Amino acid sequence: MKPDLSGLSELEINLATRVSVGDALTRSARMFGERAAVVDRGDSVTYRDLDAAAESVGRALLDAGLERQQPVAMLMGNSWQFLSTYFGCAKAGLVAMPVNLVLAPEDIVWILRDSGTTTIVTDAAFVPLIEKILPALDAVTIVVVSGEGAPAEIAGRPVLSWTEIASRAVDRPLEVLVDDRDTAQCLYTSGTTSRPKGVLTSHTSLMVGGLTNALMQGAGWGSEPTVLLNVLPLFHTTGLNTLVMPTLFIGGTVVLPGPFDPGAVLDAIEAQRVTTVMMLPIMYAAALAAQGQRARDLSSVQLAIYAMAPMPATLLAQVDAAFPNASVILGSGQTEVVPATVLQWPEHRATKPDSWGPAVPTVEVGIMSDGELEATGEEGEIVYRGPHVCSGYWNNADANTAAFAHGWFHSGDVGYLDAEQVVWFTDRLKDIIKSGGENVSSVEVERIVAAVPGVVECSVVGLPDERWGEAVTAVVVASDRSVSDAELEAAVIAYAKANLAGFKVPKRVLVVDELPKTATGKARKHELRATLRA
Amino acid sequence: MKPDLSGLSELEINLATRVSVGDALTRSARMFGERAAVVDRGDSVTYRDLDAAAESVGRALLDAGLERQQPVAMLMGNSWQFLSTYFGCAKAGLVAMPVNLVLAPEDIVWILRDSGTTTIVTDAAFVPLIEKILPALDAVTIVVVSGEGAPAEIAGRPVLSWTEIASRAVDRPLEVLVDDRDTAQCLYTSGTTSRPKGVLTSHTSLMVGGLTNALMQGAGWGSEPTVLLNVLPLFHTTGLNTLVMPTLFIGGTVVLPGPFDPGAVLDAIEAQRVTTVMMLPIMYAAALAAQGQRARDLSSVQLAIYAMAPMPATLLAQVDAAFPNASVILGSGQTEVVPATVLQWPEHRATKPDSWGPAVPTVEVGIMSDGELEATGEEGEIVYRGPHVCSGYWNNADANTAAFAHGWFHSGDVGYLDAEQVVWFTDRLKDIIKSGGENVSSVEVERIVAAVPGVVECSVVGLPDERWGEAVTAVVVASDRSVSDAELEAAVIAYAKANLAGFKVPKRVLVVDELPKTATGKARKHELRATLRA
Repeated sequence: MKPDLSGLSELEINLATRVSVGDALTRSARMFGERAAVVDRGDSVTYRDLDAAAESVGRALLDAGLERQQPVAMLMGNSWQFLSTYFGCAKAGLVAMPVNLVLAPEDIVWILRDSGTTTIVTDAAFVPLIEKILPALDAVTIVVVSGEGAPAEIAGRPVLSWTEIASRAVDRPLEVLVDDRDTAQCLYTSGTTSRPKGVLTSHTSLMVGGLTNALMQGAGWGSEPTVLLNVLPLFHTTGLNTLVMPTLFIGGTVVLPGPFDPGAVLDAIEAQRVTTVMMLPIMYAAALAAQGQRARDLSSVQLAIYAMAPMPATLLAQVDAAFPNASVILGSGQTEVVPATVLQWPEHRATKPDSWGPAVPTVEVGIMSDGELEATGEEGEIVYRGPHVCSGYWNNADANTAAFAHGWFHSGDVGYLDAEQVVWFTDRLKDIIKSGGENVSSVEVERIVAAVPGVVECSVVGLPDERWGEAVTAVVVASDRSVSDAELEAAVIAYAKANLAGFKVPKRVLVVDELPKTATGKARKHELRATLRA
Repeated sequence: MKPDLSGLSELEINLATRVSVGDALTRSARMFGERAAVVDRGDSVTYRDLDAAAESVGRALLDAGLERQQPVAMLMGNSWQFLSTYFGCAKAGLVAMPVNLVLAPEDIVWILRDSGTTTIVTDAAFVPLIEKILPALDAVTIVVVSGEGAPAEIAGRPVLSWTEIASRAVDRPLEVLVDDRDTAQCLYTSGTTSRPKGVLTSHTSLMVGGLTNALMQGAGWGSEPTVLLNVLPLFHTTGLNTLVMPTLFIGGTVVLPGPFDPGAVLDAIEAQRVTTVMMLPIMYAAALAAQGQRARDLSSVQLAIYAMAPMPATLLAQVDAAFPNASVILGSGQTEVVPATVLQWPEHRATKPDSWGPAVPTVEVGIMSDGELEATGEEGEIVYRGPHVCSGYWNNADANTAAFAHGWFHSGDVGYLDAEQVVWFTDRLKDIIKSGGENVSSVEVERIVAAVPGVVECSVVGLPDERWGEAVTAVVVASDRSVSDAELEAAVIAYAKANLAGFKVPKRVLVVDELPKTATGKARKHELRATLRA
């Protein structure tokens, strides 16, 4: 049973019934025009202004020649301009592609080439980076710079002023065809090799995931809006999709306090009467220390979320105490599936603090081995299904074939489900370390460490760490026992710092006599991790 | 940017990422298998059992020859079997088509013919109705009867036992292709003529609308589940889509107390510790009277929703008092857009109790005249946009062309938006009366009333009524003034009762000397309503 829509234009039925992230901002601006959508380092930007700038930016990108579903690379710090650009892309039917700013320039070049982007939107602060990489990016013809002091051109490409295009008057709303399953967002995430993969997420996924997050967070609608403090980078799914998007969907206020500073975070919570905060465990620890030096009023916080990894019990108890009116919950997910699980219910918090909690209502979780679902308690790969699972990876059929085999998304994490359907993470299947919120490819680090003079072989693993979640740890075998362990460690660190992005540099280097190996000579990382943990 | 999925089967990527109402029950059953999904007149049915029956029914319907997107007519009262059948259709990729049981048999025949249904699922109590209508339904080849005492065949069609097919063992989950925008539900609603229109709603619409309802209702997830008391018929969008679906999506419990009885409703609230209740104003009035005779503990209720029309202030105050821990809110919508608006925020409740409140976060509302949006305060047709607006009407291109003109869904209601974006209903554009939750076509009633001997002309309108929301009111001009008004009224009522479904019979008949008319001789209903209200 399909309706006969032959009397309508495609755009008419599309506008009336579609799922579009751009429409979500339109709606919030209609409803809450004068309310602060963003408080950017103290400056309020209303929904009306955020939406108007998004309309103008979206229109300007189309006027510049961009076509439906083309990517727009965003090399931007956390700011209201970031959010207007993101929603402008959504309104225009383009793909917003925030790029991880802590990657090495060569990685950024690789991503921009792989995506085929013609357009970069950036901040004046990143002009030196753009000047460095642009000569390697022949396809890029449009550069938009936000902020003061941008040059008139970079590497031969004329530069557009973000401020100018965002303030152009528009005489009518930007209404173009957007399909529910059009790609709205592309975020590159590290794979098991050094090649990042572009995770494509549709409007439907972002809407269903956003509503689910809002529901999980008990988000305030109406006269008592959510006030979210976001300190996480907006080029990451956690800050962007878990927090900021659902808050803007329902007319809340997003507070962006600038680069992470524990005192400034506490000041912002007090000044803005923040209701919702999400930080990594290491950030909570820093904030608690700052609170110990000078106590701020944190009573407005109703929800304190931590992410990436279970929090040590002592720290968790301190966070509970510091936020007297807040539920403190753990959210887990990955760029491909966000949200996936929450550790939220009081009885689980009390008895299973080291678990990930159960799946959210729009996700089904299973444990799979060899294409079959495992019974309760059996270990295997954690797999997910649901309407907000990503659409797949860009330009990577092999990765898609592997990721969606047997009709489930394969997370790369190993674990089991208990009788209450609570997820317990036990190991990483793919060779990825999650350190301080970033994915680090063990293989990439191993390739660098193996090139250090004096290292005969090495294995890089993640070990549990209170500060980083997982600490990148290099285990090396020395070629020459006359070199001291300390000298070799220093050499490894120095070489890694010269050749890797900072967050990939090993936090620890251990020198061993030999690595545990499989029959085929592959390092037995599972065994290595278990030994090192013990 | 679309992913290359060439290494996957269509079903693999579909299962991992789709929107499906059937999957929603699968997820709840995985998570809350032993929890009561439904308490049907006191009997608990677990999620596991509800889901298993849905799987078996869906499979049996496919085994019986039904194909993707074919409708399954459900002539069923409120029961867990209704819900299993509904979700079984969703899991099988069929269209669940609950039919309004208070319609006249000829209307039901018209709907079944228009939809082209081959299959009827019904209760034993409706076998006499089915026996009556089946000879006129050549296309129907499959009849499934739930409950005891069904005959082996009806009008030459063999009868399947619902209990038998629902308890068939299945060896694997029912996993068939379901697209996000496949039709999941068809509900016929009365139009301005006597021909009902089949409203087609997709999986995406039901999922986004359901999550929005859950968010609006502050639905409980986890250890403190929502316990919903539903007294509204499940063949209506209000009970089905506003209440029951979101509750089942998040693992709550649906209490179905049977035919409306105010004492039984109160007993069920007390016994089941109900958290959420939705009733029409007339039901609240009856419940309050019963509570006055014997007070039950209503302290568990956190949310008391009323629907269809603003509630009189005195009654609203009584409801507030009777449910001491509940927010009392007004939800408005229509089969094509549910939810649309809520009167929920305390400041609106206090100052604008006669409004409909603002649009929910996933709906944009506008006021349109002649294809252009009106400014704040200007009156015009209320129009909606958003991801859970219906897909369109079945087999009715003209209705779709009119309903979605200019990229907005045209509600048929007239009103305006105030400066706070609150919706104020002022009139009905289409000639429909909403009485006791049912749509009544004025034109259909007028055709009957005009046939009464002694009536020379008539106009039928809805007038505000505490009991019915709107009362069907016939305004007639007598051909012969020697007949008393009382005699003519009695004749109109008697003739209407013999020729119309009970809910369409005029509640009042007014005899006037002449009807206000337009220049072209059409009754000026707007003027008539205004005069009669005053």
